[in-house]
Parts: sequence; C-alpha cells; structure tokens
Amino acid sequence: MAPPTPRLVVSVDLKKKPWEQALPLHNRWHPEIPPVAHVKVSEVFRVEMVDWTGSVIKDDDSAADVKFIDISTVHYLSGPIRVVDKKETPAMPGDLLAVEICNLGPLPGDEWGYTATFDRENGGGFLTDHFPCATKAIWYFEGIYAYSPHIPGVRFPGLTHPGIIGTAPSMELLNIWNEREREVEENGHKSLKLCEVLHSRPLANLPSTKGCHLGKIKKGTAEWEKIAKEAARTIPGRENGGNCDIKNLSRGSKIYLPVFVEGANLSTGDMHFSQGDGEVSFCGAIEMSGFLELKCEIIRGGMKEYLTPMGPTPLHVNPIFEIGPVEPRFSEWLVFEGISVDESGRQHFLDASVAYKRAVLNAIDYLSKFGYSKEQVYLLLSCCPCEGRISGIVDAPNAVATLAIPTAIFDQDIRPKAGKVPIGPRLVRKPDVLRCSYDGNLPTTKNPAASM
Amino acid sequence: MAPPTPRLVVSVDLKKKPWEQALPLHNRWHPEIPPVAHVKVSEVFRVEMVDWTGSVIKDDDSAADVKFIDISTVHYLSGPIRVVDKKETPAMPGDLLAVEICNLGPLPGDEWGYTATFDRENGGGFLTDHFPCATKAIWYFEGIYAYSPHIPGVRFPGLTHPGIIGTAPSMELLNIWNEREREVEENGHKSLKLCEVLHSRPLANLPSTKGCHLGKIKKGTAEWEKIAKEAARTIPGRENGGNCDIKNLSRGSKIYLPVFVEGANLSTGDMHFSQGDGEVSFCGAIEMSGFLELKCEIIRGGMKEYLTPMGPTPLHVNPIFEIGPVEPRFSEWLVFEGISVDESGRQHFLDASVAYKRAVLNAIDYLSKFGYSKEQVYLLLSCCPCEGRISGIVDAPNAVATLAIPTAIFDQDIRPKAGKVPIGPRLVRKPDVLRCSYDGNLPTTKNPAASM
Amino acid sequence: MAPPTPRLVVSVDLKKKPWEQALPLHNRWHPEIPPVAHVKVSEVFRVEMVDWTGSVIKDDDSAADVKFIDISTVHYLSGPIRVVDKKETPAMPGDLLAVEICNLGPLPGDEWGYTATFDRENGGGFLTDHFPCATKAIWYFEGIYAYSPHIPGVRFPGLTHPGIIGTAPSMELLNIWNEREREVEENGHKSLKLCEVLHSRPLANLPSTKGCHLGKIKKGTAEWEKIAKEAARTIPGRENGGNCDIKNLSRGSKIYLPVFVEGANLSTGDMHFSQGDGEVSFCGAIEMSGFLELKCEIIRGGMKEYLTPMGPTPLHVNPIFEIGPVEPRFSEWLVFEGISVDESGRQHFLDASVAYKRAVLNAIDYLSKFGYSKEQVYLLLSCCPCEGRISGIVDAPNAVATLAIPTAIFDQDIRPKAGKVPIGPRLVRKPDVLRCSYDGNLPTTKNPAASM
Amino acid sequence: MAPPTPRLVVSVDLKKKPWEQALPLHNRWHPEIPPVAHVKVSEVFRVEMVDWTGSVIKDDDSAADVKFIDISTVHYLSGPIRVVDKKETPAMPGDLLAVEICNLGPLPGDEWGYTATFDRENGGGFLTDHFPCATKAIWYFEGIYAYSPHIPGVRFPGLTHPGIIGTAPSMELLNIWNEREREVEENGHKSLKLCEVLHSRPLANLPSTKGCHLGKIKKGTAEWEKIAKEAARTIPGRENGGNCDIKNLSRGSKIYLPVFVEGANLSTGDMHFSQGDGEVSFCGAIEMSGFLELKCEIIRGGMKEYLTPMGPTPLHVNPIFEIGPVEPRFSEWLVFEGISVDESGRQHFLDASVAYKRAVLNAIDYLSKFGYSKEQVYLLLSCCPCEGRISGIVDAPNAVATLAIPTAIFDQDIRPKAGKVPIGPRLVRKPDVLRCSYDGNLPTTKNPAASM
Repeated sequence: MAPPTPRLVVSVDLKKKPWEQALPLHNRWHPEIPPVAHVKVSEVFRVEMVDWTGSVIKDDDSAADVKFIDISTVHYLSGPIRVVDKKETPAMPGDLLAVEICNLGPLPGDEWGYTATFDRENGGGFLTDHFPCATKAIWYFEGIYAYSPHIPGVRFPGLTHPGIIGTAPSMELLNIWNEREREVEENGHKSLKLCEVLHSRPLANLPSTKGCHLGKIKKGTAEWEKIAKEAARTIPGRENGGNCDIKNLSRGSKIYLPVFVEGANLSTGDMHFSQGDGEVSFCGAIEMSGFLELKCEIIRGGMKEYLTPMGPTPLHVNPIFEIGPVEPRFSEWLVFEGISVDESGRQHFLDASVAYKRAVLNAIDYLSKFGYSKEQVYLLLSCCPCEGRISGIVDAPNAVATLAIPTAIFDQDIRPKAGKVPIGPRLVRKPDVLRCSYDGNLPTTKNPAASM
Repeated sequence: MAPPTPRLVVSVDLKKKPWEQALPLHNRWHPEIPPVAHVKVSEVFRVEMVDWTGSVIKDDDSAADVKFIDISTVHYLSGPIRVVDKKETPAMPGDLLAVEICNLGPLPGDEWGYTATFDRENGGGFLTDHFPCATKAIWYFEGIYAYSPHIPGVRFPGLTHPGIIGTAPSMELLNIWNEREREVEENGHKSLKLCEVLHSRPLANLPSTKGCHLGKIKKGTAEWEKIAKEAARTIPGRENGGNCDIKNLSRGSKIYLPVFVEGANLSTGDMHFSQGDGEVSFCGAIEMSGFLELKCEIIRGGMKEYLTPMGPTPLHVNPIFEIGPVEPRFSEWLVFEGISVDESGRQHFLDASVAYKRAVLNAIDYLSKFGYSKEQVYLLLSCCPCEGRISGIVDAPNAVATLAIPTAIFDQDIRPKAGKVPIGPRLVRKPDVLRCSYDGNLPTTKNPAASM
Repeated sequence: MAPPTPRLVVSVDLKKKPWEQALPLHNRWHPEIPPVAHVKVSEVFRVEMVDWTGSVIKDDDSAADVKFIDISTVHYLSGPIRVVDKKETPAMPGDLLAVEICNLGPLPGDEWGYTATFDRENGGGFLTDHFPCATKAIWYFEGIYAYSPHIPGVRFPGLTHPGIIGTAPSMELLNIWNEREREVEENGHKSLKLCEVLHSRPLANLPSTKGCHLGKIKKGTAEWEKIAKEAARTIPGRENGGNCDIKNLSRGSKIYLPVFVEGANLSTGDMHFSQGDGEVSFCGAIEMSGFLELKCEIIRGGMKEYLTPMGPTPLHVNPIFEIGPVEPRFSEWLVFEGISVDESGRQHFLDASVAYKRAVLNAIDYLSKFGYSKEQVYLLLSCCPCEGRISGIVDAPNAVATLAIPTAIFDQDIRPKAGKVPIGPRLVRKPDVLRCSYDGNLPTTKNPAASM
Repeated sequence: MAPPTPRLVVSVDLKKKPWEQALPLHNRWHPEIPPVAHVKVSEVFRVEMVDWTGSVIKDDDSAADVKFIDISTVHYLSGPIRVVDKKETPAMPGDLLAVEICNLGPLPGDEWGYTATFDRENGGGFLTDHFPCATKAIWYFEGIYAYSPHIPGVRFPGLTHPGIIGTAPSMELLNIWNEREREVEENGHKSLKLCEVLHSRPLANLPSTKGCHLGKIKKGTAEWEKIAKEAARTIPGRENGGNCDIKNLSRGSKIYLPVFVEGANLSTGDMHFSQGDGEVSFCGAIEMSGFLELKCEIIRGGMKEYLTPMGPTPLHVNPIFEIGPVEPRFSEWLVFEGISVDESGRQHFLDASVAYKRAVLNAIDYLSKFGYSKEQVYLLLSCCPCEGRISGIVDAPNAVATLAIPTAIFDQDIRPKAGKVPIGPRLVRKPDVLRCSYDGNLPTTKNPAASM
C-alpha cells in the first residue's frame, strides 16, 4: 500500500524574495543552471511557484507597480528538476519527457491574481498603440470561480494552467535562439518584412545580466557572469516549450517535451488561474502563484521517433500537448471576426496577427456598449476563457481570425437584440480598472470611424 | 395552426449548370445584382446551393479537374434574397440582419464531397510551397459521418456549415474593397511588409469579367459589362461577411450581418460538410452542394447600435456570430504548436500566420509517422474538426499558434507512447489521395532537417 | 465511385392511412409478420415512419382526439426489414444485429409534433391520479429547435430519436411475454407486490384483435386471426428492444439487437423530436412522423458472445446501446429530488418509481411558480431534454431519484434568487395547453400540504 | 483588499478518532446537536471531513474491516454550522439556505479512497442477493484521476462531491421521520407492498444509542441519552437533504436547503472522489476524507416562495440543486438496459428499481466478458462516472431503466465487435478485489440462464 501523497520537491515561501527561497528560483534558460530537485518517472510530485513577477505586483489600489515593473526579471521559474528512470538513468538528449499534469491550483493562502497591461514604454501588449497606459485589475477566487472588484458583472470558472513549462536547452540550441533573436532585434526592421501594425517593442528580448537570476549559481561569481550573458530570456515560447500559454493545458493534460540536456532539467512557472487565447494584454492571464502536481515518463529516443525538425537542425522541433477531459462547458458563444485590413483601411496579405487584432478590437468596442470601459474589456478578453481561432488562412488577401466569448460569464445578456435597445448598454459598470497616466509620446493608433 | 414547412425560395438542379438554374446563380459581390427571391422576417425558408465550383469537381478517379480548374468562376452563390419586415418594409442600410441557421445539410441524392489542393500555378494553398501538386480526396457521407476512400482509417461527424454567407455591398463599400485590394496586388510587394513565407499568389483576386456570372443579368448586355468589371470576387471574407469559413457556424447559429443596400440582398453558398480551422488546403473543407433553412430578423439601426467601425469609414465593420449549442463532443485532443520561426530557421516577429504554418507542418509530419502520406494528412487537417488557435500573441518575438486534433477521429491511438514504438507507424495507409504532377518550376520550400 | 444516397426501403404517404400504405404498417410484434423490405449489411438505407398514432392526433385546437383515442392501434411501425449479409445469408437467431443511426429527422413537409396526456380512463400516464384530464400541446420545429404555441417561453434543440426499434420475437419469446404479462394483468394485484402509488391501469396491455394491423397479412384471413390473437402489443420495451424510449439514441448511435428469427425482421417507429427521461406524460415525447437512415452489421453468434441471459431462458436478454458524440450541450442544470415517501407521507422501501414521481411533482410545482400551469409543466418535462436519474438506490428506506432540467431552455432565469422575489413568478404564461374535461370518477391523489 | 483565503471553520485530524476531534463529529440528525462553528453569508469557509466510517476502513490487504464494520456508527459528519446574515441574524425556519460549493477535494496527505460491498448479514447492498460477500477495492488518486490496484485497466477523472449535505431537522420533522420509518420497519412487510426483489435489509435504520455520537454533547449525560434515542440515522436522504448522493454535485454546484431550525445547522460529510448513479454497492462511491469550501446565502422566506410541500405537512419538501459547469467530458457511452422483469422471469409493474437492478446485472455480466471478475465490475459501476437513467416509466408493464458507461475509462475497447471475437475477453484482469467469505445462509438469487 504505497503512499500516494505527492512529494513536495520545490516549495516556495511567499514572504521571501525569489532568490531567497530555500531552492532559489531562476528566470533564464541555460543548460548550466543546476537542478534543484530530482524526481523519478511514475512518481507524482509537487512543485510550488511564485507568480511570474515574484510578488512585485500587489493586491492594492494602484497600477504603479505595473507601470514601473522591471521586466528584465520575469518569469521566475521553479526548478530545474532532473528526471531519472527507475534504474536512476537520467533522461538523455533525444528522449521525450512526457509530463502529466495531475493536479494544480493556487497556493493555499494566496487565492488571488491580477491581470494588467504594461505601459507602452515598458512592455506594452498586443494593443499597446490603442491602450498605452498601465492598467491593473485584481481577481479574487471563490474555488473554481474568479471575480474582480475592477470588472463588475463577470464571474467565470478558471481553466487553470501553467503558462510556462519547459526543458533546459542545450548550448547548441541556446546559440540558435540567441543568434536568430539578435538578428531580428538588430536588423529586423531592415532585413525582414515585419508586421507593421503590431507596435509592441523591442522586437526581441535578448540576454541581459540585469535582473538575471540563475538559481543556485551565486550572483557575482565568474560562472554567473558567463551564464547570465548567454542565458535566454523566458518571454517567448521556443523549441523547449517554455512560455507556450496554451489556455487549456489544465488538469489531466500531458506535455511531450524534447530533452536537450541530461536529466531534462524541467522548469515551470507563470501560473494562470485563467487565460484567453492570445493572452492579449501581455500581463494578461489571471497571474498568480500556484502549485503543480506532475508525473513524468521518459520516452527513450522519442524525439527522433515522434518529432520532425522544422528548420535547419534536428533541434528545430516543438513539443506536443495532450489536452485532458475536464473543462468548463459553455453552451453559447458570441464570435467576433477580424480580417487582415488594418485600422487605416489598408489591406494586408493573409496576416492572421492583423486579423486577430481587428477581431479583438471589434470585441472590445462591442462589449464597451454594455457599460464597460474599453480597458475593462481589454483585460477581460485577455484572461477569460475566450477562444482565438484562425478560421481561414487561404482566402487571399484576407486571413479571417475569430474571437469567441462564452456568453455565460456575464450577468447580463450580451447578445444583439431585435427590435429594441437593450437596457444593458445604458448601464455603467463601476468601478473601473486601476490606471496610470501614459507619460510617453509614442504615437497611438486611431480608429478613424469609431466616433462617427 | 401555421404551416411550419420551410418555404423553398431558391432551388437548384444539379443536372444543370449554375447559369442555367431557374434562379440563376452569381459568383460576384455587387449592389446591382438583382434579388431572385423575397422573404419576410420570422418565416423559415430554404435555400439550395451547388458546391462552390458548380459541379466542376467530380466524384471520379483523377485530380485533373482540380489541377485545371478555372478559379475565376468560384464561388457560385444562391441569392440574392431580399428581406422585408412584416409590413413589407425592406431591410435598410444601417440595419443589422440577424440570420438564424435553423437547419442545413447536403442536398438529398448528392451525399458526397471532396477536399483538394490546387496546383501551385493555379490557386495554391497555405502550404503550396511544400505541396505544389494538385491533389483530391473524395468523401462519402453516412448521415452525420464522413469517410474517404482516399484517406483510410478516419471517420468523423461533420459540423456542417456554409462557408459563405453575406449581404450585398453598397457601391461605396465595393469601391473601398477594389481600391485596397488593387493596391495590395499591384504595389504590395513594394509598399507593404508582407509575410515572406506565405507563397500563395496572386496577392488578391481583382474583378474580372472572365468567369463572371451575375444571376439574372444577361451576359453580353451593357449592364453586365459594367457590373462585371466592378464586382468583387468572393474569395476573401470582408465587411459583408462573405467567405468567413467559421467551422462551428452550424445548426442553431445566428449571424448578425450589416445591411448596406435596400433589402439586404443576402447570398449564401460554399457549403462545407466539415472544415478544420484555417481550411488550410484552400479547396479545403469537405466541399459539397447543400441546403440551408434560415430565419431572418431585422434589427433596425443595428449597425450603429452594435457595430463599431474599425477603419476610416462607418462601413469598416465586421459581422457578429452566435454559435449554437449542438456540436460533436470530443474528449481528448492532441495539440501541435508552432512558433514564428520559419523553415529556414529565421525569426519572425509575432507573426501568427508563420506560427500556424509551422504548427500545421508539425502535425503533418507527426501524423505521417502513422502510415499516412503527407498529402493525406494535409487534406485531412484541412477538413476534419481540428481547432486552430492563437495561443499567445504577445511574447515577442514569437507568436504561438496551436493546432488541436481530436484523437477520436482515428481508428488507431495516435498519441506518443512510452517505452516502445507503436505498431501504428509501421502501417501503410493505402490507397492514397488522387494526385497530379506539378509541371511548374516555382521553387519549393525545403525543411532542411526533416530527413536528418 | 459508389452511389452513397441512402436507398429508400420503406416510404410512407401521410395522406393515406397506415394500412393503406404501399408497404402496409404493423402495430404488433409477431414472428410471422412478413418482411416488407430487404437490406444488406453495410448499405445505408432509409425508412419513413408515421407518428405512433398514425395521424390520429391533429394539429388543431382541441384535445378531443387525445381524449378519445383508440389505444389498441398504437404504435404503427415500419417494417419488418429482413437483413442479409454480403453473401445473402440472412441474420440468424443467436446473432446480434448492430444498427447504426446515420441520420434521422422529421418527414419533410410535416415538421410538427405533439405532446399529450391521456384521459385517466383511457391510457393515463405517470401522474394520471394528479392530472386526470386529456391535454395536448402542439410543437413547431424550426430546424433543430422546437417551440409550442401552448407552452410559451420555452424553446429547445431536439435530440431526435426513434422511440421504438426492435427485432421480431421468436414464437418461444412471444409466449414468454404473453404469459408473464397475462399473469400480472390477471393476478398481479393479488400475487405480486405492486407499487401502490402508480395509478396507471391496466397493468398490462394483452394481445387484442381490436385495432390490430399486421402489415401484409390481410385482415379477416385465418392467418390474420391466428396471429392477431397472439401478437404482442408494442407498448412496453422488452427483450427485443422495442419501446425503449432512450432519449439520447440519436445520430451516431448504434443499437445491438438480439436476433430471434431468420432475417432479424427489424421494425422501427414512434419517432420523437425530443423526449425527457421517463417520458412521463405517456404520450409524452414530441411525437412526430419521421425518417431514419440506418446501416446494419451482423455479429454472428453475438448473443452468446456478448449478452448474458437474465432470467430462466437464453432469450431473457436486453439490447445494448451506444450513444453517439453529437448532442446539445447544456451548461447548467436545475435538479429536483424525490425520495420514496409518497404524497400521503407514507414511507416506501427503495422504490425508485415512487421517488421519481415525487421528483417530477416537485419540479412541476416549482416551475408553476414561474407563471406556468401545472399541465404545461407536466407536458414540458415529458418532452424537453431533462434527465431522470437514479441517484441513490441503497440508502434504505429511501431511494433518491433526481430530475435535472437544463436552465437554458427557458426565456427567464428559473433559479431561486437570494434577497428578493423574482419578477418571473408573477408572469402568467398564456395561452395554456389544450384540455378536455375529465368525466370519470376515479379518485385523484391530493397533495395535502400543497395549498398550505 | 479583502483576505480571500477561505476560513477554516472545522478541521479534522486523521490521527484522532471522530469523537476526539477538536470539534467533535456527529453521526445523527437532531435539532439539539449544538453548532460547532458559525459562518456569515457571503464568506467562503472551509470544512474538513473524515471519511464516512471515521477511518475504520483501511488501506490494507484485507476486506475484514468491511465485513465486520459497525454500521451503527455511520456517517460521521462535520458541523453543525450555524449560518447568520450580515447583521448577525441567523437563518430562520422557513428560509432557504443556498450553499455554493466553491471548491472541494481529498484532504492533503490522504489521497486515497475505497469502494466496498458489505456482507449480506451486515449492511448488504443493491445486489446483495447476488453478491453476498464483503469485498473491497482501494483507489489511489493522481490529481484528478483515480486508479485501483484491485481493478486493473481502468482510470478515470473524479467528479468529486459530498455524499451528505443537509440542515438539522426540527423536532416536528424528526418525529415525522421516526414515525414513518418505524412503520415501514415494523409493519412494512405486512401493510405495504414492497419490492420483493430488493433484498437489502433492514427496511429502515431506526434511532439507536449504539454507535451514536452527538458532537459536543457528552456521552452518558441525560441530554445525550434523550437525544440519542430520538436522533435519526444518516443513511437515507430526506427532506433536509442529507444523504442525497448526487454524483454531479461538484465544484460550482449550489444547493438550496430548507431551514428547519434557527441557524440552519448545516452538516456535511461522506466525501466521494467519484460515484456512479445509484451508488449500487452501498459502500459504493470512492469513499474518502476531504474538504469543502462553501459559501452561503440566506433566502428569507424561501421555503414558501420556492418549495411546495409534497405530503401532509409543510415540512414535506425536498432541496433543489444546481449543477455547475465543470465536469469531465465523455464522448461515447455504452448503455445497458433493464426492464421490470426479474431474474425469475416474473413481470413487475413499472418498477424502476427492478428495471435498474436488471440493467446493472446486465452491465456486470457484459463487462465480465472482458476479463474482469463480477465483483470487480460491481464495485466499478458503483464508483465510476456512470449514469443511471429512468428512460421510460409509462409503458406498462415495463419500466425501462438504463445504465450508461463512458467507454473512455477502460484501457481496451469494450464495444461489441462485428465479425470476430475481440482479444479483450480472453484477458484476465489480475489481481482481483479483496474478498471475505460469506458465512451466512440467506438465500442468494440465481440467474437461471446465465450459464446456458
């Protein structure tokens, strides 16, 4: 009769800073960040995580913490965790690491989260040219449900998931990342055709010693200096999984991660109580601290067996995900469409990012008719269980992207009504999100006909 | 006791050509194409439609019909249908037309469909640089299920829907379309930053008298000549709805279409027995003839009330959709991820189209390990009920797009397995799709590491 | 390239009486009713059916047709259909007949149905002692949706299914049926412990030449006389399937029926646009004419392989059903509970029928607070997609049965509200169901505390 | 910024006996059992509970603990909890107490459960005449999933819920219970028509001082003696809710309980990791310790407003339940049917309990063909997420009950197969459930044709 309680392999103390934890956290990807814990295949183990900012964002009355955040410090990850098989042989490069999410949730005693948009000069977001201010909404949890004092009239069950789950890259893969991202950051505007209407900058977040934390490796040592200069930022999802932000990756899901270093060196973090597809506001899910209960298997040689490289080397692969059977059921969805024509009326070619931008803007404008501020809706669509779909990607010149919103999350009927104006649109939803001024002078995008 | 049988307002005879029908079909958008039928709000009426090519693609043993198709003739639409209220006052510009899909299906006696990819020199598709040949798969229907003699081992319930549903544009809107699409076609390569890795060409399909059909307007008349030169092609989705290709737009759905001309002039066509998000192979759903049973309401002044223009004029709007409560339930999904790094390893900036391309390529390669040819999988992912999501659009420089495939459509377990190689991958799925040679010389894209 | 259109093997003409049809219908089970059609395994074929009363119940303004119905004539079935394999060898006793429901629906041109309760002296229903009058509600169909002029404020998607699907019994099985049902009818009150609070009578419907129709066998012949005296009524479900009334047996379902006679002799009828679990009002689904598209397989020797007899002979078996993947999704359910204590307060022992009666009565009373007459709710709960569950059957002395109602079918919020009386309960739902007087003098059951 | 962490109002220490807890547990219903905790409306609070037997059943290698259990001690409940509104006014008789289940789960560190059947002489179960032995299966939890070393080849997500949730009865209601249950226990066999084929005995469990625990009231005091003689057993569900065993009453559900005493005096217990409809083996869910996070509202006067008495007094009511939106999705179900004909072939009249018994027996026999022992299946059907439906309750003389089993819980395909015998049935599932001998001599029921 085996002890079935998951073994706690990484714990966090929310009263301590990320780097003060018993098993200090890290916020970079690098093969030489040493494991802080070891697990065997088949055992269920528990990992605790701080929120992605390491408690910088507070449950308070101001968005100043958002406006002035030091983005060089995100995301704080728990791990790396070394995985071995029953004979103690570690996962090896070329294997697949199958990670099952047995359970997950907020950390007991810390049942709240936040959704925010960064200031345009410090992080931005998908619609930063329309919404340049830092804003913040707090969410409280009642079991499976979240509600916000800043976005009244909505309540929804969370589809909780880790935003980040990934294995450590090998040095070879890390070099590939750094090279291609440096190229886009340095020469992208000249050498590459970039989407002109996505205004979030910089183009890439390159390695920086500023804000860097490397787990057990002590700051100031030569080792630290070397690794900090090379280690990849955690913001984009990449070949190792990482920041994949798949909103349905909840209880019962399974992730097949490529293994690039001995032991796999699994790291996790960025827990989301709930997220909408696209996570459009960037600080965009309901961000929280939390725990994962995981179970690993090693599929020996699985990379070659199951993954096909997509690029110049065998390392250009992506993980595979299995979505589990438990999630909130919604009966009806209201769907907003976008096509790849931008706010100035200009035609783009099969550009799903432009189309999705228009779909999200359409949804924001529509819902703001029901008494919400546009900032409330922007944050809501970033974190509620809405679905962002690529509906058509072949009907040149327009990609069609859609944003589907479950109607049941609202306390009013948000569907268009025949014959009369609904009472809803006259309702003003107070209070509003927390908001800072935008003091910069980057141009904002206007939607010329919005006030016609 | 009212007669509840839907009134048949547009019938088609599949033994006749589209232009020989009693109510002749049209394949262009223009305000002056005259209505062929009139309906009142609240009445349930039935519209029959040919498949999008007007029976050019046959249930036979060759893909030659696909290779040599004249694309200037698509899509054949039924309508326009003029909508009036109970007092016979027509829908007016500025109204919203709410169209409920009460029922729909294949045309009795024509229960089959096809999925195809066009030749790279004649239409192409999302992955035309990887798959330049014309290919075709036939699907047979057994009630709700479809199966194909050319893609063995899969069977799935259809989520049947119209690919195209839209209202007629006003002259002002039509001019906007023609202008912006001409600009992209003529100067796009120079003036605009376009996605370099989407190889489908031309950039836009401009009005052409070739292949043009305008319903009741006789070919050769002066009126025909004038309209044919102006009338927009039906390929892209636009402000009037049109080719929106929303795969869940099935029974019980409701579409809120802007009205631009008196009577709304509703047209429908391009019936899909089933489609995957993105419709990646272009001729990509299970294309079929079919019928719709519809019910309309007019929301007077609804455009101003519910839609916000997104662009320089009040006409820059998009329809809103409500998805109904009936669809196949799937318990488990296998999810493939793509990031905005292309096949050469080059980094793009938050480009969801590139990311989705990589996700689809990943899925094709993976499933081909289970005995399928890549062409079989390409067609399958275009038409089966898979979901294409924009998972993350803010984590610069990578957009993360995902393709989720319901595992239950396969007759084998397609999940990665721990410990041993599955028997499945050794199975060869015969026969294959119908295929033509590619005789052109446009360059194809190689995936350098695929055979490593 | 095979012709995939389902072959029409039984057609009905609604302008003719059941016995005047080209392939005359039957309303009894007997091995010697000759097949009217032949089908092969794997072919998809179409069967048309009249409603269970053979068009006796009309779409009119009175419930008189319900009150005076001749119940000896129900249910009119289409068939029998003889099933053979690819080598023309018929299904044989001991085989299993796997019948897949590929498609189904109302008969085109006859898109309406009815729900009714019979008069207490002529058929009754589950709650006939509470509701002794004949009542009727008409339903109209709008594609997947049904609505009733007699029960305003509700609209729901149908989960359409055949109430009856079964194979012909062998003579041996028929004798078993007749014997055991005669015993209960004649001596049940003395010899058997019967539920005292289910007042529907007679205890069983024995064979009767009155109202009997035997398909191709001519009335008045000696053969007819013999068979009519032996042939079982179609009202109860039995070992051959028959009137199983499984509400989810819709598109994509599969029924594994035991074969008792050569050729299987499959009969179908009693089409339901929608039904609630229990079909409590007896004439209780949305009864309609309709069609089925079916596909058969024969599992040779399958009875012995898959079914275990439950009773004194190998014939005491039951069919197995597979429920398909397509049905309306509902997000929220309001659940009413009943325990096995009757209206007089008397305690019964683990009696699920008594418990379910109380659950249904609870639901009727509750919903009547929202402006409905109790008769409206009784009919509604009989035909809407509600679920009747045996929640606990072991906690002596109470069985717990529950009735779960999807809240989305109502146009008002029917949940209890904190803090204030909802506006809803004050609303009177007009008009009401059609209703006849009850002229009999059987005692009705009072609920003593209902008006306290 | 409010502290959102649920307040722990009742904690349990699993190393202590139920009566040794800081807030001692109770196992009877009585108005005078004093509250152990107080909560306010709107606050989220946490209640911990031992398993229903108070840790008598162990995670060990024998079913002896089940065989010799003292049933007079079940179920141990946490509470009563007194509920007040924001002005500290308690819930009053005549109010409705709305209890929302915000969250729930196993107790951390105790992630296992058991399913068992009692010995026929000591508790029995739904099928005790077929399965007279005490048996036991242990279940381990991996997050949302349960698996058993004693029932190999199945794994399923739990739909966790409290088996018992209820308010304290008033003295008047308690007297009604005691009177009606004494009547059935003492005279039931003579005065009442009871189901002859349900062999579980006694007919009712009357108050007994043996095994009685009354929370804060000290054993041996005069008060204890008085209350213990009157207090109702917790086994049956009744007007106060109690042992309702509704398998879907999980996260996001809401229960509307009648209030009979000042403060409502809410008690909860009998946590189930998962249960099948009917909980057929009696000790039949996956029984475990656990916690609930609850939130209460008081609907003043709600009993009169929303509940209708069904019996001689205004106290003859039942709670109402709302089922929440989160549960495992299953795509396909295999459905077994039962009709009200018993194992001897005897016909019963619309008896849903008999019909359900036959459906369950059919399912047990069927699944045992796939290598399981019948005891394994009996326990499995008691605890897995299967649905027990009353499909038809009007088609005299047969009630039709169905048992629907989600096929995805098995690691093999359990559907009947055309053409050949599946490999599955040849597989023997080892090991088996833990089992004791049956030493009694009550007659067992044989299924005469089972071995034919």
